[in-house]
Amino acid sequence: MIYFDNSATTKMYPEVLDTYRKVNEQFFGNPSSLHRLGNEADALLQQSRKQIAQLLGAQPDEIFFTSGGTESDNWAIKGTAMEKFAAGKHMIASSVEHPAVTKSLEQLEKLGFEISYLPVDANGIVSIEELEKAIRKDTVLLSVMAINNEVGSIQPIEAIGELLENYPWVHFHVDAVQAVGECEPLIRHPRVDLLSLSAHKFNGPKGVGILYKKHGKRIAPLLTGGGQESGMRSTTENVAGVAAMAKALRMTLENSASSRKQEQLVRNKLVAAISEYEDVQIFSPEDGAGHILCFAMKGVRGEVMVHAFESQGIFISTTSACSSRKKGTPYTLGSMGVPVSWSQCAVRISLSGENTEAEAESFIEHFRTLHEQFQKIQ
Amino acid sequence: MIYFDNSATTKMYPEVLDTYRKVNEQFFGNPSSLHRLGNEADALLQQSRKQIAQLLGAQPDEIFFTSGGTESDNWAIKGTAMEKFAAGKHMIASSVEHPAVTKSLEQLEKLGFEISYLPVDANGIVSIEELEKAIRKDTVLLSVMAINNEVGSIQPIEAIGELLENYPWVHFHVDAVQAVGECEPLIRHPRVDLLSLSAHKFNGPKGVGILYKKHGKRIAPLLTGGGQESGMRSTTENVAGVAAMAKALRMTLENSASSRKQEQLVRNKLVAAISEYEDVQIFSPEDGAGHILCFAMKGVRGEVMVHAFESQGIFISTTSACSSRKKGTPYTLGSMGVPVSWSQCAVRISLSGENTEAEAESFIEHFRTLHEQFQKIQ
Repeated sequence: MIYFDNSATTKMYPEVLDTYRKVNEQFFGNPSSLHRLGNEADALLQQSRKQIAQLLGAQPDEIFFTSGGTESDNWAIKGTAMEKFAAGKHMIASSVEHPAVTKSLEQLEKLGFEISYLPVDANGIVSIEELEKAIRKDTVLLSVMAINNEVGSIQPIEAIGELLENYPWVHFHVDAVQAVGECEPLIRHPRVDLLSLSAHKFNGPKGVGILYKKHGKRIAPLLTGGGQESGMRSTTENVAGVAAMAKALRMTLENSASSRKQEQLVRNKLVAAISEYEDVQIFSPEDGAGHILCFAMKGVRGEVMVHAFESQGIFISTTSACSSRKKGTPYTLGSMGVPVSWSQCAVRISLSGENTEAEAESFIEHFRTLHEQFQKIQ
Repeated sequence: MIYFDNSATTKMYPEVLDTYRKVNEQFFGNPSSLHRLGNEADALLQQSRKQIAQLLGAQPDEIFFTSGGTESDNWAIKGTAMEKFAAGKHMIASSVEHPAVTKSLEQLEKLGFEISYLPVDANGIVSIEELEKAIRKDTVLLSVMAINNEVGSIQPIEAIGELLENYPWVHFHVDAVQAVGECEPLIRHPRVDLLSLSAHKFNGPKGVGILYKKHGKRIAPLLTGGGQESGMRSTTENVAGVAAMAKALRMTLENSASSRKQEQLVRNKLVAAISEYEDVQIFSPEDGAGHILCFAMKGVRGEVMVHAFESQGIFISTTSACSSRKKGTPYTLGSMGVPVSWSQCAVRISLSGENTEAEAESFIEHFRTLHEQFQKIQ
């Protein structure tokens, strides 16, 4: 089996799963309980928070635990909306954001908010000029992802941060779900106010995520109740999930230099091979993230390609897992100006540092065979 | 160690933890992925949904997975608010609800909603007459918990359900977080529209919960994005957590008859012993839930009592874990008319079916010793 779908989800590291088990066995108390079992669970939670903060170059009280990237995105956006309701009802996002961002903006639109979507160029990148034109006095939030999940474009977060120094009233939210281990530091500019992460994208457990929220930036809580997470996100804390996530983040970041090198090696091999075919188009920008490669074989629909490779034990994806069961043009490719005839054929390979050159060679060989077969059918 | 704090949290059953591990090892795919690894994960997710539906006497498409009881409560309340914004802005709740309910109502109050809190009698029970008086044409939601988390009062859900047959425009939400294994069926009346559960309260994992939503009842999603859970709750599904929760629910309900019997036995022993003391008051109603016992020793603050027992290896709580770190009168006791001088001394024992009569005897012995010590100090 060759797993080339690491942007959809990753397998938990055995050590991380082991942490989850141990914490549940040894520290099962409710962190809010006054007694020792509660205190021990709380100490472990705060230790995980501290470790994650150090890894991100943040302060522990800037780290909040959530149920995943989607909740982090929803909270950043809807929490800003609720907090700044009186100050303004305008938000800006790139036109290639994840549905966790765009669907949240659409929900706010129904409640009276106005949303501006920034166009992107053929590489999927937003322009700073267009952004500056879009900012208004009543703009309360800008959401731009760090690395696009469908093609791997890397957005100019630093330049956006620079620009936003002139617009201090705008919350800057970065969906960095695809960026862990791929760009360092994750908080690429001090002007980033809010940043979303999801543990299952970096070999941690599903159902756990992080929202980084810079000191002094105010958002309303999305989950209210017992007052956990400094009153910002109520619910009994998932102590074992958080401890496992902290471990996964440490392991991923410790290995990130060699992982990136390995991913680039595998990706280069794949790119070199498939660009030989005249009827294949690569949509990922050359200077995009090293772990994502989006391309299409003319006339072969994405689903057909996914299943053809699956029958060979190779797991790839039609653009993103979240949009793979929906009909229509993939969002990112459409915004990049890719015509539907091509975008409906798009597939995505997403790598981890554990993928090998031998796997790439195996893929290339199967690709050649499939190409021949599809040519005969057409 | 004697663990008498099962309403704060429970330890995962070893079999449940084992399920969590196995699913992560063998079914780590993203359920939204088109390929086999996705399909297998999705099949497991739907199988868990079906099993949970059967256990609750519901249909699979009435079961939605969340990050816990707090999210379920928040979603039921805020989702109703968003969905029925135009229809009405009045909600009703008992005055002894969990903070996950009351804090959500308070947040809505800031956004223009009006909230009526139903008074309770000395046993913590709401009156049907008072409820009927409170219902208005613009009432969109009633929230009444099944079993109170601080004293164990069992609310008249059936009678409320009967009454609400005359008020079809009101969503009826039941926080049943403390009721799993304690009352059957959990959905005690067909008029219940929304019901919240939390896995870590029944030996399942933290960070996973359920919202039952009756067919045809409409609420807006709280988490928007990739369209998971029939578009009602977006985020990559916590497959292992859900499968583990399904197993925990099955095991808990299978054992519930014998667990309840055992809890009642232990509770009766405790009640018989501590009611001998003139300076001890029991707040839990006689006909309350068998697993919760709330009481106070005159003049000895709850925290002091908790720590005194902790030093003997016995873990109890000051009313609820969620409110145990806050100052002031416990909410439930205050609403029941218990004076502050007594309520600040309140502690809670919460049992599981695994607690034994020998543990009760050990508690009673330590209670006698502590009582003597405290009397000397005073």
